[in-house]
Amino acid sequence: MLITKRVEFSASHVCRNPLLTDQENQELFGVAANPHGHGHNYVVDVTVEGDPDPVTGMVLDLKKLKELVNREVIQTYDHRFLNREVEPFDHVVPTVENIAIDIWNRLAPHLTQKDSRLQGIRVYETPDLYVDYFGEAA
Amino acid sequence: MLITKRVEFSASHVCRNPLLTDQENQELFGVAANPHGHGHNYVVDVTVEGDPDPVTGMVLDLKKLKELVNREVIQTYDHRFLNREVEPFDHVVPTVENIAIDIWNRLAPHLTQKDSRLQGIRVYETPDLYVDYFGEAA
Amino acid sequence: MLITKRVEFSASHVCRNPLLTDQENQELFGVAANPHGHGHNYVVDVTVEGDPDPVTGMVLDLKKLKELVNREVIQTYDHRFLNREVEPFDHVVPTVENIAIDIWNRLAPHLTQKDSRLQGIRVYETPDLYVDYFGEAA
Amino acid sequence: MLITKRVEFSASHVCRNPLLTDQENQELFGVAANPHGHGHNYVVDVTVEGDPDPVTGMVLDLKKLKELVNREVIQTYDHRFLNREVEPFDHVVPTVENIAIDIWNRLAPHLTQKDSRLQGIRVYETPDLYVDYFGEAA
Amino acid sequence: MLITKRVEFSASHVCRNPLLTDQENQELFGVAANPHGHGHNYVVDVTVEGDPDPVTGMVLDLKKLKELVNREVIQTYDHRFLNREVEPFDHVVPTVENIAIDIWNRLAPHLTQKDSRLQGIRVYETPDLYVDYFGEAA
Amino acid sequence: MLITKRVEFSASHVCRNPLLTDQENQELFGVAANPHGHGHNYVVDVTVEGDPDPVTGMVLDLKKLKELVNREVIQTYDHRFLNREVEPFDHVVPTVENIAIDIWNRLAPHLTQKDSRLQGIRVYETPDLYVDYFGEAA
Repeated sequence: MLITKRVEFSASHVCRNPLLTDQENQELFGVAANPHGHGHNYVVDVTVEGDPDPVTGMVLDLKKLKELVNREVIQTYDHRFLNREVEPFDHVVPTVENIAIDIWNRLAPHLTQKDSRLQGIRVYETPDLYVDYFGEAA
Repeated sequence: MLITKRVEFSASHVCRNPLLTDQENQELFGVAANPHGHGHNYVVDVTVEGDPDPVTGMVLDLKKLKELVNREVIQTYDHRFLNREVEPFDHVVPTVENIAIDIWNRLAPHLTQKDSRLQGIRVYETPDLYVDYFGEAA
Repeated sequence: MLITKRVEFSASHVCRNPLLTDQENQELFGVAANPHGHGHNYVVDVTVEGDPDPVTGMVLDLKKLKELVNREVIQTYDHRFLNREVEPFDHVVPTVENIAIDIWNRLAPHLTQKDSRLQGIRVYETPDLYVDYFGEAA
Repeated sequence: MLITKRVEFSASHVCRNPLLTDQENQELFGVAANPHGHGHNYVVDVTVEGDPDPVTGMVLDLKKLKELVNREVIQTYDHRFLNREVEPFDHVVPTVENIAIDIWNRLAPHLTQKDSRLQGIRVYETPDLYVDYFGEAA
Repeated sequence: MLITKRVEFSASHVCRNPLLTDQENQELFGVAANPHGHGHNYVVDVTVEGDPDPVTGMVLDLKKLKELVNREVIQTYDHRFLNREVEPFDHVVPTVENIAIDIWNRLAPHLTQKDSRLQGIRVYETPDLYVDYFGEAA
Repeated sequence: MLITKRVEFSASHVCRNPLLTDQENQELFGVAANPHGHGHNYVVDVTVEGDPDPVTGMVLDLKKLKELVNREVIQTYDHRFLNREVEPFDHVVPTVENIAIDIWNRLAPHLTQKDSRLQGIRVYETPDLYVDYFGEAA
């Protein structure tokens, strides 16, 4: 069984690799390479896999999941310029792909129990563009 | 190929296990343990797996699927206080996890043909909390 | 200029007037008259009218609006059985019409300044049924 | 990792197999068999599987994906009467199942690289009916 | 107070005036002039103005409103090719503007009571294009 | 009759008035005052008032409206850091209120005909916060 909690944050980013020239960045990322940055309302679906506890009927304590996601993701990302204020985006391009990997890396160590382990991260950059990441082995 | 029909119902529930003390229920379920109950507009995605028939182009007759879901799920759950009016929630806590399992159990026996078998049930309790259940073997 | 903040709560209710017979209630309200109650995820749009302050660019301090709505509406309604736990629904039928009027009555006294006065309340009972209330004089 | 781009088109269709009688079509498809046709705002999720490039942080160039989907799907389907204007729907019933298969067949030959291959097509005919297709081997 | 009921139907249409040349129609309506037609999932918001009844708490009987909208709008429009099957679209171009006016004209004669009169019709042709019509005098 | 076209853009901004101290900005705007900026997917509803033309059935030519909104709004705002790249936000705080006023000011001079004049601008900063602006006289 999978249980998914959706959260949101607002952030800005630049899609630009400092190792490339301005022209290469422009060709690769188009307007998203604008160095002043632009922003999105990101939507994140955190999916946990497990079996409901026979007594509580819950896969995991949702209050604790909210606290975890708030502490590890929202407080880190919300209202931030990702390239300048959030590790590892000083040297990793904050594409929606890399944001999903980073959120996975922040949450997975805390969700490792057999009956409530992180299964996937979905990140919507806009309502019509999103990625799913299931960890390295997936 | 998967085909999914979405339906909705409105119901109320209490998240409370009668075997636990009031304090334990409060700690586990928070405000959801309020004994008078509270409610949701539940959204259910019923997913059937199969291959489209070469003549009709359909995995299954959608009119029949609607009748089945209406009879087995909507007429049972809609406008009900789940703990008092819907089996097995007199003794099973009606968390969204257990609601998904119960809907699976009601529909799966009717969707067992090789080319149109129940594949999954998704239940949204709110727009930002949902579960997926794929049956016992999944 | 109008500014609107959307909030949500989950509650249960019964549409039933104790002054009417069971049969009359059933005819008027249909399944919504089920005495055990049923529930909804209510969505409330609180609209304030005013002019943006030249220095701040804001019609009103949104943090204060959130605190007000949280204190007067969410803490009162969320996870409650309206007929039994929220005034005036012990004697007023908690239809979506009356819920909108009650939310207006709770918020309007706090939003009376010329440049930030309550303009309207919209309440969605389901995604396809909602009411708008603009106060008595409107 | 999966990345999904959502696009939309408006089209009309008739669900009717010319090899069947009028009565058989009516029984199978109901009002959808009306020979004058009717229409939908179709929503298509195109999902590509791959690993983000270490330099660009992207699974594939989204500008190129948009051009591909626009050329192969939108220009073919948008504002068309599918049965009369889009192959193979002169002889294949344009159910949502067959539309998903046809969109897969149009896109899959262009998305075959190990690091950016077509993984799935989801087509919504209405907000409460959709199919997922993952190709023949899936 | 306003109460709004949302309904949906699927239909196809051609935006083309038979009094104009093919080229004029093409210039005015673009791809929407394609004579084979194309379609949409139309969403209609029917808004009624009135005061809630002190006994029932309702502006009007929602079951009766649903029956009225179903009989006058859904049964007329759903799964139809508007230009050929629905009056007055044999001679009036079925733009979203004219569809809203026609729906108003069908419903307004039935909603004329002082405490429950038709106030407005909103029609969405797509999620990003809609019209509001409030009758001739508005 | 009103007709509304919805468009979207992604931008970043800082809610901070350079005439105030850091502490005053922090108290007024909270996390939105972070000087590096943050961003949103803004949604804009442009509403035009008029009567449908008897020949075309349209209030105005939607292709021309799209070109106008694209040229005056999207090309100006999309993928920009508003405080640094868009007039007048070098000296006006880019709150959602001021963004709506600025979009009105950009579009209103082009939509002044009696039968197709700008009626209102709605801007959503997030799905649960939006403003409506109807011009100075409204």
